[in-house]
Amino acid sequence: MRSSLRGQVDPFIVMDVMEAASRAEAAGRHIIHMEVGQPGTPAPEGARRALAEALAQPLGYTVALGLPALRQGIADLYRRWYGVDLDPARVVVTSGSSGAFILAFSALFDAGDRVAMGFPGYPSYRQILRAMSLEAVGIPTRPEDRYQPRPNDLPDAAGLILASPGNPSGTVLTVPELRALTDAARARGMAVISDEIYHGLGYGDRCHSALEVTDEVVVINSFSKYFSMTGWRVGWMVVPPDMVRTIERLAQNLFICPPHASQVAALAALDCIPEAEANLAVYAENRRLMLEGLPRAGFDRIAPPEGAFYIYADVSHITDDSVKFAAEILENAGVAVTPGLDFDPERGRGTLRFSYARATADIAEGLRRLTAFMASR
Amino acid sequence: MRSSLRGQVDPFIVMDVMEAASRAEAAGRHIIHMEVGQPGTPAPEGARRALAEALAQPLGYTVALGLPALRQGIADLYRRWYGVDLDPARVVVTSGSSGAFILAFSALFDAGDRVAMGFPGYPSYRQILRAMSLEAVGIPTRPEDRYQPRPNDLPDAAGLILASPGNPSGTVLTVPELRALTDAARARGMAVISDEIYHGLGYGDRCHSALEVTDEVVVINSFSKYFSMTGWRVGWMVVPPDMVRTIERLAQNLFICPPHASQVAALAALDCIPEAEANLAVYAENRRLMLEGLPRAGFDRIAPPEGAFYIYADVSHITDDSVKFAAEILENAGVAVTPGLDFDPERGRGTLRFSYARATADIAEGLRRLTAFMASR
Repeated sequence: MRSSLRGQVDPFIVMDVMEAASRAEAAGRHIIHMEVGQPGTPAPEGARRALAEALAQPLGYTVALGLPALRQGIADLYRRWYGVDLDPARVVVTSGSSGAFILAFSALFDAGDRVAMGFPGYPSYRQILRAMSLEAVGIPTRPEDRYQPRPNDLPDAAGLILASPGNPSGTVLTVPELRALTDAARARGMAVISDEIYHGLGYGDRCHSALEVTDEVVVINSFSKYFSMTGWRVGWMVVPPDMVRTIERLAQNLFICPPHASQVAALAALDCIPEAEANLAVYAENRRLMLEGLPRAGFDRIAPPEGAFYIYADVSHITDDSVKFAAEILENAGVAVTPGLDFDPERGRGTLRFSYARATADIAEGLRRLTAFMASR
Repeated sequence: MRSSLRGQVDPFIVMDVMEAASRAEAAGRHIIHMEVGQPGTPAPEGARRALAEALAQPLGYTVALGLPALRQGIADLYRRWYGVDLDPARVVVTSGSSGAFILAFSALFDAGDRVAMGFPGYPSYRQILRAMSLEAVGIPTRPEDRYQPRPNDLPDAAGLILASPGNPSGTVLTVPELRALTDAARARGMAVISDEIYHGLGYGDRCHSALEVTDEVVVINSFSKYFSMTGWRVGWMVVPPDMVRTIERLAQNLFICPPHASQVAALAALDCIPEAEANLAVYAENRRLMLEGLPRAGFDRIAPPEGAFYIYADVSHITDDSVKFAAEILENAGVAVTPGLDFDPERGRGTLRFSYARATADIAEGLRRLTAFMASR
């Protein structure tokens, strides 16, 4: 069969770690999973109950932009979370944040356009761009900038992806930083896409939305993380008013609609804030243990992880081959971690990502194992 | 905000009909819906029960290619339906057939490539192609060929989309036709994508899969139609063995996974054949009424609708403006139908699509109204 150039995207390196971890588990070993990027908790109980009650309905196609009540409920979230008064007509429910990226890139960029993003960053940004014949341009970021790009770093490109809290860094952009970056992008004619998928998972001040500083931005978010609904594939985007019609037509054709059952569950999840906050309290305790235990184990070069459930560690003083080092940690410590190369194809040989999304007991045990492993090297 | 050229896809003309129908209903009128492309029935009862039982599980991400049991179950369907022995490793569960098209086009074609399809055809083919910087090339088909392309019609292009049963025509390709078309495409170096989303909904001989004549084809199907699960967004594709790895990497990045809850429901739906067949019996009766009533009403230039739940009528002897004519039918007969322009931008001013997916009583009433309307013109 013929094949395209754009279809030849990179594999996830973490998949090899996950397969090795599975093999180890199949062989009877106990593995602590610090490589996964999702909560271990189910969707909120109220969300699951609402869906159970809706199962007698046909659940056919919804309108392409999503259930009106869900769009309204998401708009209300912006008032509660950010004090932003948002017209629900600008809210588009999507098939996960993945679907939102496909829609945003289609609406904004033509084949050959360049789109910039900080390295390290979520690996699928550059792979989705490639699959859509767009060119990803990495902006190397600095630990002293909390792995976030500086306004002066912006290259010549048609678009800029911001991520706060960042993945893998967990670092958060302040309002002045968001303003400076979106201003600089606008001055250069770059469309800004702000990935806010980890909002709600913050451990200091609340996370700030790019919508607090400008309406000329595409904000992408999801029910996956804060609302613990990864497998449900329901996210959203907020777009400028003049972009709604374009996105609607693209969504009608590219997706028809987001999964109806997931939309029903998501709508109810908006009323399950106490359960989401209880999950957050677990992450907060996990994070406290990680910030105490990782440096003690020898992983002390870390950016302040103000949000999400990740810690990104510079291990370049220990190794120049993070893939091999992660394999060694799995083999000898029984802890699965993600090599940095997934997030930064240039400098990721000297970094690791640790996730603390799972149960606190697992985190504590993982830290004990990592400490023992590092002491024995 | 900046905007791309490829994002400027055409609107669905049927949306205007649907909005006009909604306004009429809001004003108290009763409308018969022959414009919709989906069953009025819910997902099979067994599918909904299986999901209800699974709701206590986390339902996090599945692997990108879908639940292994579901891939196996779909492969088993190919043995039962077509006598084809299919390696489940070649089955990819997708976010509806929409997701399958995005994956197939990404894996097969680069920006600027041309992809051919019969006109009339499903409008989203050309819109998805446009959004991915590909060029749709329409092959004008003939009523005497049952609106299916001839092997000699194939243009110079990188790909060919076949659809059997076709939408809007409902016509079916025979095994010799499938062989001739796929052979001709291969001889010209064209990748073939066979859209088989309406399989199972056949009213004569069973529908034949392109997999019965070649393995060098991407087959796309879905739980939406035969299994009555449109809003669940779960479909599948069967790809040649050498394409699986590429599709897996694309799926990991572009979709992460199909909706988990929908996969659970789809897996159980595979065991709900009696309910699907009961729905089919309703469509068969509806079709019988339509084939009897439409010609009597004056719509007698129709292709033999051997599958799906559509009838495509040539009305060029009545009108040269199908959009206006559909509006007139809605206004005066209280029946919503789809103007042909959605399916054939060239000759669709002289055609209409009638759907018979809803309840039989609605079909009978719709036919009475159409007959009275045509008699009064």
